[in-house]
Amino acid sequence: MIDYFTEDRSAEQVNGRIGPATSPRLAHVMTSLVNHLHAFIKDVELTEEEWAAAISFLTRSGQICSDTRQEFILLSDILGVSMLVDAINHRQPEGATETTVFGPFHVDGAPERQMGDSISLDGKGETCLFEGRVLDLDGNPVEGALIDVWSDNEDGFYDVQQPGVQPPFNNRGIFRTGADGRYAFRGIRPVSYPIPHDGPAGQLLKALGRHPWRPAHMHFMVTAPGYRRVITHLFVSGDPYLESDAVFGVKASLITPFERVDRDSETWRAAYDFVLQAE
Amino acid sequence: MIDYFTEDRSAEQVNGRIGPATSPRLAHVMTSLVNHLHAFIKDVELTEEEWAAAISFLTRSGQICSDTRQEFILLSDILGVSMLVDAINHRQPEGATETTVFGPFHVDGAPERQMGDSISLDGKGETCLFEGRVLDLDGNPVEGALIDVWSDNEDGFYDVQQPGVQPPFNNRGIFRTGADGRYAFRGIRPVSYPIPHDGPAGQLLKALGRHPWRPAHMHFMVTAPGYRRVITHLFVSGDPYLESDAVFGVKASLITPFERVDRDSETWRAAYDFVLQAE
Repeated sequence: MIDYFTEDRSAEQVNGRIGPATSPRLAHVMTSLVNHLHAFIKDVELTEEEWAAAISFLTRSGQICSDTRQEFILLSDILGVSMLVDAINHRQPEGATETTVFGPFHVDGAPERQMGDSISLDGKGETCLFEGRVLDLDGNPVEGALIDVWSDNEDGFYDVQQPGVQPPFNNRGIFRTGADGRYAFRGIRPVSYPIPHDGPAGQLLKALGRHPWRPAHMHFMVTAPGYRRVITHLFVSGDPYLESDAVFGVKASLITPFERVDRDSETWRAAYDFVLQAE
Repeated sequence: MIDYFTEDRSAEQVNGRIGPATSPRLAHVMTSLVNHLHAFIKDVELTEEEWAAAISFLTRSGQICSDTRQEFILLSDILGVSMLVDAINHRQPEGATETTVFGPFHVDGAPERQMGDSISLDGKGETCLFEGRVLDLDGNPVEGALIDVWSDNEDGFYDVQQPGVQPPFNNRGIFRTGADGRYAFRGIRPVSYPIPHDGPAGQLLKALGRHPWRPAHMHFMVTAPGYRRVITHLFVSGDPYLESDAVFGVKASLITPFERVDRDSETWRAAYDFVLQAE
């Protein structure tokens, strides 16, 4: 008896085709994907019009992608997928700095700068001193940690979103800790901004009655030999979008007081100690 | 207590953001989608590298799409999604012609031809007479039914895949039944062919140890006032890919004997009566 396609056994029939030489991990992932995808379609009894709308949505998402626009990451972000993958892959011991979404705006190759330098090259925004230490779980300073930081500018855009408008590597830089584990640099107090919402991700947010805003945050990627990499943000305490981040990135431990200091060298100060977990 | 993102409650947190003015159907579909998507990621504990590979896969799929290439439909097809949506939306009473995938190669606006005409304009392939009747569930002929047919040519390509090589509307045509419900036209005995497999869908098939072939088939879309539209294929009996159609389209009732007749007017004959369900 040939096992032709049936509604009842649809997922088993698709998964039954997986060949014996398939990577066991790929077979496991695809079997689960097909099971859940078919279960979803059966649960909602997806109509043909909805299927066609989904095909069109995915196609438009792919076609808006470019070197500086990643719509599928935006979709992953707004559906909580990015944060879920982050959570599963970075279960942390108590006391270690919590992680959050990487986001689509990191750039490799930012310049290494001297401690105390400013990363704000366009001179826009209110200057903020970021300082603190990189520590291990026992509170010892971590020497030779690289702190890669990036943020939007005062207008709410990353440099890569405004080539020709912002100088390259505006609000980006890498800092290296010494024996005391301390870091300090000047940037701006980041501002909240909407994720790019002129494409399919924005249309979906709108249809779901959701706004596209992210609370103001500074991105950090902290690496050190012998420690697990930490990718996270510091969020500006008091931001109106902390409870409704479009990408679900906020964790209580990452909300940081920005203290108004009104010094000649800076208007604000934000202090945070990063705690790394040994590999 | 603010409900920040957690691994345990990830799907509830995403779905909790759906606004009160959202269409109830969209809210239902998206809630189920997010539940299943998060359950899949948790089941397999998706790694960050796998997530990145998925983002790249979707992006490449979108970017290979064009007016004549629809990679997301191919993906839907090879994952059994297209057949599942078809099955859910076309549950048929006993005796009605079964449906199968529409596929990406239909073209609107094919010319209406006279009964008995040939749809093969390039003169390639072995001529086949297709004939039969369009009936209702009680066996009465259906007058005024439009039978829209399309197939690949002898080389395994649809005309739209070879603009400038095949004449427009090669192996396509529309036929209209009279009072007796009969139809007859000449085409070619279709040949099996691989779905386009030089892109992400083909890479996935290969990684899963699956081939990209479809068994030879003639496409039919039959419409008539007062009846539900039927989109289906007739498969060539004996084709080596009937049991392993890359898109899961085969149903036993659609496998049709192609009888060798060796007449002057045609080499083969395939007979099939379509049975329509009233709306």
